[in-house]
Amino acid sequence: MKTSPTMVALKKLQAAAGLDFCPHVPLPPIGPRDVLIRVTHAGICGTDRHIYEWDAWSAGRIPVGITTGHEFVGIVQALGSAVLTTRIGDRVSGEGHIGCGSCEPCRTGNGHICEKVDIIGIDRDGCFAQYLSLPESNVWPVHRDIPDKIAAIFDPLGNAMHTVMAAGVSGRSVLINGVGIIGLMAVSIARAAGAGTIIVSDVDPRRLELAKKLGATTAIGAAEADWVKQVRAATNDQGPQVLLEMSGNPQAIRNGFAALRNGGTAALLGLPSKPVALDLPNDIIFKGAVVLGINGRRMYETWYQMESFLLSGRLDISSIVTHVLPLKDYARGFELMQNGQAIKVVLEIP
Amino acid sequence: MKTSPTMVALKKLQAAAGLDFCPHVPLPPIGPRDVLIRVTHAGICGTDRHIYEWDAWSAGRIPVGITTGHEFVGIVQALGSAVLTTRIGDRVSGEGHIGCGSCEPCRTGNGHICEKVDIIGIDRDGCFAQYLSLPESNVWPVHRDIPDKIAAIFDPLGNAMHTVMAAGVSGRSVLINGVGIIGLMAVSIARAAGAGTIIVSDVDPRRLELAKKLGATTAIGAAEADWVKQVRAATNDQGPQVLLEMSGNPQAIRNGFAALRNGGTAALLGLPSKPVALDLPNDIIFKGAVVLGINGRRMYETWYQMESFLLSGRLDISSIVTHVLPLKDYARGFELMQNGQAIKVVLEIP
Amino acid sequence: MKTSPTMVALKKLQAAAGLDFCPHVPLPPIGPRDVLIRVTHAGICGTDRHIYEWDAWSAGRIPVGITTGHEFVGIVQALGSAVLTTRIGDRVSGEGHIGCGSCEPCRTGNGHICEKVDIIGIDRDGCFAQYLSLPESNVWPVHRDIPDKIAAIFDPLGNAMHTVMAAGVSGRSVLINGVGIIGLMAVSIARAAGAGTIIVSDVDPRRLELAKKLGATTAIGAAEADWVKQVRAATNDQGPQVLLEMSGNPQAIRNGFAALRNGGTAALLGLPSKPVALDLPNDIIFKGAVVLGINGRRMYETWYQMESFLLSGRLDISSIVTHVLPLKDYARGFELMQNGQAIKVVLEIP
Amino acid sequence: MKTSPTMVALKKLQAAAGLDFCPHVPLPPIGPRDVLIRVTHAGICGTDRHIYEWDAWSAGRIPVGITTGHEFVGIVQALGSAVLTTRIGDRVSGEGHIGCGSCEPCRTGNGHICEKVDIIGIDRDGCFAQYLSLPESNVWPVHRDIPDKIAAIFDPLGNAMHTVMAAGVSGRSVLINGVGIIGLMAVSIARAAGAGTIIVSDVDPRRLELAKKLGATTAIGAAEADWVKQVRAATNDQGPQVLLEMSGNPQAIRNGFAALRNGGTAALLGLPSKPVALDLPNDIIFKGAVVLGINGRRMYETWYQMESFLLSGRLDISSIVTHVLPLKDYARGFELMQNGQAIKVVLEIP
Repeated sequence: MKTSPTMVALKKLQAAAGLDFCPHVPLPPIGPRDVLIRVTHAGICGTDRHIYEWDAWSAGRIPVGITTGHEFVGIVQALGSAVLTTRIGDRVSGEGHIGCGSCEPCRTGNGHICEKVDIIGIDRDGCFAQYLSLPESNVWPVHRDIPDKIAAIFDPLGNAMHTVMAAGVSGRSVLINGVGIIGLMAVSIARAAGAGTIIVSDVDPRRLELAKKLGATTAIGAAEADWVKQVRAATNDQGPQVLLEMSGNPQAIRNGFAALRNGGTAALLGLPSKPVALDLPNDIIFKGAVVLGINGRRMYETWYQMESFLLSGRLDISSIVTHVLPLKDYARGFELMQNGQAIKVVLEIP
Repeated sequence: MKTSPTMVALKKLQAAAGLDFCPHVPLPPIGPRDVLIRVTHAGICGTDRHIYEWDAWSAGRIPVGITTGHEFVGIVQALGSAVLTTRIGDRVSGEGHIGCGSCEPCRTGNGHICEKVDIIGIDRDGCFAQYLSLPESNVWPVHRDIPDKIAAIFDPLGNAMHTVMAAGVSGRSVLINGVGIIGLMAVSIARAAGAGTIIVSDVDPRRLELAKKLGATTAIGAAEADWVKQVRAATNDQGPQVLLEMSGNPQAIRNGFAALRNGGTAALLGLPSKPVALDLPNDIIFKGAVVLGINGRRMYETWYQMESFLLSGRLDISSIVTHVLPLKDYARGFELMQNGQAIKVVLEIP
Repeated sequence: MKTSPTMVALKKLQAAAGLDFCPHVPLPPIGPRDVLIRVTHAGICGTDRHIYEWDAWSAGRIPVGITTGHEFVGIVQALGSAVLTTRIGDRVSGEGHIGCGSCEPCRTGNGHICEKVDIIGIDRDGCFAQYLSLPESNVWPVHRDIPDKIAAIFDPLGNAMHTVMAAGVSGRSVLINGVGIIGLMAVSIARAAGAGTIIVSDVDPRRLELAKKLGATTAIGAAEADWVKQVRAATNDQGPQVLLEMSGNPQAIRNGFAALRNGGTAALLGLPSKPVALDLPNDIIFKGAVVLGINGRRMYETWYQMESFLLSGRLDISSIVTHVLPLKDYARGFELMQNGQAIKVVLEIP
Repeated sequence: MKTSPTMVALKKLQAAAGLDFCPHVPLPPIGPRDVLIRVTHAGICGTDRHIYEWDAWSAGRIPVGITTGHEFVGIVQALGSAVLTTRIGDRVSGEGHIGCGSCEPCRTGNGHICEKVDIIGIDRDGCFAQYLSLPESNVWPVHRDIPDKIAAIFDPLGNAMHTVMAAGVSGRSVLINGVGIIGLMAVSIARAAGAGTIIVSDVDPRRLELAKKLGATTAIGAAEADWVKQVRAATNDQGPQVLLEMSGNPQAIRNGFAALRNGGTAALLGLPSKPVALDLPNDIIFKGAVVLGINGRRMYETWYQMESFLLSGRLDISSIVTHVLPLKDYARGFELMQNGQAIKVVLEIP
């Protein structure tokens, strides 16, 4: 008697902190347009940490029972009947935001703002597992010159890339508010994309040090009393032309707007957990500022940009992946992120 | 013995409500690059009403003793020694924001966001007077086919034009929040500039009626309980592609963002009097919104746009000027604005 | 014994002028992602006329045996096994440019410039037939308020829409070179999209008259000796801000560039049949011109724009469809186009 | 008896090859808005070489008697009566294109395409002289950290900067056609501005070598038989996303368009001496290309960009100035350019 194949997966089985290591989970089904991916590496995201810790946001959004994880690379193992160009054996990453495919954003190259998006590891089963089912249209073939540990983190790299490229940094002075994982990636990208002065701000001095190694020209503690003055001083007293907001912190957001040069561009990626009171006349209106909301990655312009920057050699983010651990040590991975020892942790899946 | 010539002017002589009608004010001096304009018509702005009523903003900003007014048309009467092309007898209006001329915004066609701007009628003597001194670079020659009462209100028309053209309404659905004078102008401009659906919102039903006469397709009371739902319903449940925020009201601003379509553009012109709490993730970030702060008029792109729209016959705002009064009846003009009987009042200056 | 169903189709069976009316053609096969459309109306395009007349371009491009036609509306009759949202009975038109779906343009909302595009009626069987097979991703659901004879010509309307909206006409003066079918559509669209002065040029005075009825403000014979001077005169001697080149005529192209205002935008849609000698320094470089190559329709931004303009009531092109004929009278349809009696001919398919 | 002061100047006194070294030329007059600049360094431009050699263009454009030269740095020596912020002793360079100041381009930040522009050293006396008269509005204060030999060549550096920044190279593959002085500058700028792959093409192998030292990733001889194929090969067979056309050579222009990726941007700066036959359908229209005519420098956005790139340390063009010679050795300077030994020659003016 033949038994169905099963796989290892990290699941959220209780509405509580932690994740369950489940050794005998059925493989995900694939539809005619889907591919089955044998996941080999998966990145741990800050969002995964929220889910792990089961904070208020997670409790309100994550269905108990889900397989988590949304950053990955793997090998295509099986194809739905209507798959067009993907082949078994292809090494692929993929866009975890699955748009409806038929709304105006999806049909105009703006699938990142589809109102009916499903996100793997959040709304449906994700990639902390040996197998992942994904629509072929979401698959991204990984170039042979890009290593697995980089391909595994295209998702957050794409957040950073989307933010930097939407704002437009070439030849401009840039302030990056918050240099967590994505902020650090943004430093590297801004440097590669032709930014002039790059100012970084964070509460963590270790992060600021790292940011300088990656190309930041000035680092300022987020809590310093004369913060706006220091930022302005680093830009000939004119303020940065671009603000990349990656902290989500209300005071940092207000400070960022206060520092921004008249006519400047603010790209907002960081998510405040509650409403932020803004002085609209002085922060935006009189300033003639342009404010851009940034969500996900442009499908798939952002992915082409990542590939292009990486292959050209202009962008190197290998130092951002500080730890590669086996899947079974996932708790250690979360711990390394929680205590600040790791920047990015990638899990190897057997 | 020859006496110096004097003029009539409306001055704020006391830090209190009201304006003083002064019959013997010395003529303003002109420097080598300035022209002296014999003002013939001047519009009363909402800002003038703030100054008239001496609200908190006015008390903090307006120097007592100033001649007020910043919307005008007149005839050039005298030229400074280094004036280049303006001639005595030219009929002119002018940009009341006087940039420094030497900063980056001023030298790159962005003088509307000069940090050192001086505004006539606010920071220096204005146009509620028989004579006005203005740098030649701020003078706008008025085309012979544009009547005085329209040329007198290029300033607010330019605010509306700047907002509409910065947002880009051609072929897009537009929501205009607040149809005071500038909002009503924006309706006319949006219609002429190729907008599709034009939704207007205001607390005043008379204004909404007027807006519909000027081209609005849907009018919704700002206080209606299911406001966002109604706005969405007017746009096939997708929300408007463009929000022109001209109310300055915090709740209206939040509602406007809530209604805005994913990927939409919000142009902010209205000035809230205190900080506005925004739900940045849902209002801007996940939505992929583009938010534009709008200040003044682009120098002088906006002015060319006004001329072009008016001369082509596509734009007709003559019904917006409901009253033309002699200067001495200025108190009556303010009263008509206060009680809502007038939309725009223009003063004739003898 | 059951016989396979067949259909009526217009085919190019000989490498010579004419088309063959074939009453017993097998229905086109559909793959898992395709839909089968029962075509009810099909427009005759200028390209179809080239194919009908078997000119040099056709002889080099069109495979003998093909079913021609690429403008249509119809009813979905059958669905492939992996179709997602389309339903039998849906009234649909569709994008006739079938991109590969996996290249950078296709994956970034720029499928109109896919290098591997297949065009129905040109590279594969088209819509001058009772049935058409089309990938679901190319299907466009037609709003109930849009009549068949308009939905049948979304293809050329989309060419005009793409050109007008790419150039950006809101508040700008526009010159349309060549008012054939697409040029006339462009006049209507430019008017709806907020253009100021609209100048049209053509060799055919009847077309110029029609253009004026549709909203052109000035009509100039393309062969007039002082053409550039006249165009400039219609724009206060400054030249139009936008050139929509729809003639494909070398001299008209050169004239259009000569007339264009410094800093203006030229959108090129018309196809010259041989190389065009341009005075690059004076026509483009010193002028700071922006030149846009326009191909097909943006997928599917252009389609949303068409729907939006039509439903808002701003755009009415019903007068452009001058003749609706039964399919069997196709030869009469081509004749009406050849002798200039018709503008647009739509075939009804039984 | 007091004699009027005189100065040394290089003048074109005959309608023939060569320039005249004139030791006793009257100082140029200054109007109320002008400043008198004591020129200390002046660059020799390719245009100066045309004038020196008295080619057909020069014979048709240059008034005999003119003082030549348009690239410079110097010290302000005297001020007109209506000068605003410039001070005696300021070290300045300046924009040599003197716009009319009152036309639409001049009043909207687009003075580089003013139709009535006067160019120093071409239409009026230039900077190969001890003194230059210039409107204050054209003066550019030079930052203390920028050396004279760089400040002296802001004019051609600005041509390169304008071209690169208008095209937008950040994260994109770039082809630079022609690496003369401005093409080499463009290589450096493209590198600093975040370009990915940078392909250069030229007939001169020495120039190609230099371009690689400055940051080009691939160099291809302009005359190679399979040129388009090689360019495509350097971009994964997709063609470059950006073409910077700086050769002015008709065949190079055609090749550049043929190589350009679909949807790419071509910025045209090089000036062909006669009409260029283009295959518009394949080169521009089907390709969906964007073609930008580039003239002069944006006033003064380009100048701020130069300063910003130079001060940030991202851009270093010092190796491009290969020779600094005293003014009296000007003939030697032209000779070094003619025989290809020099790239850029700067003259020191005593």
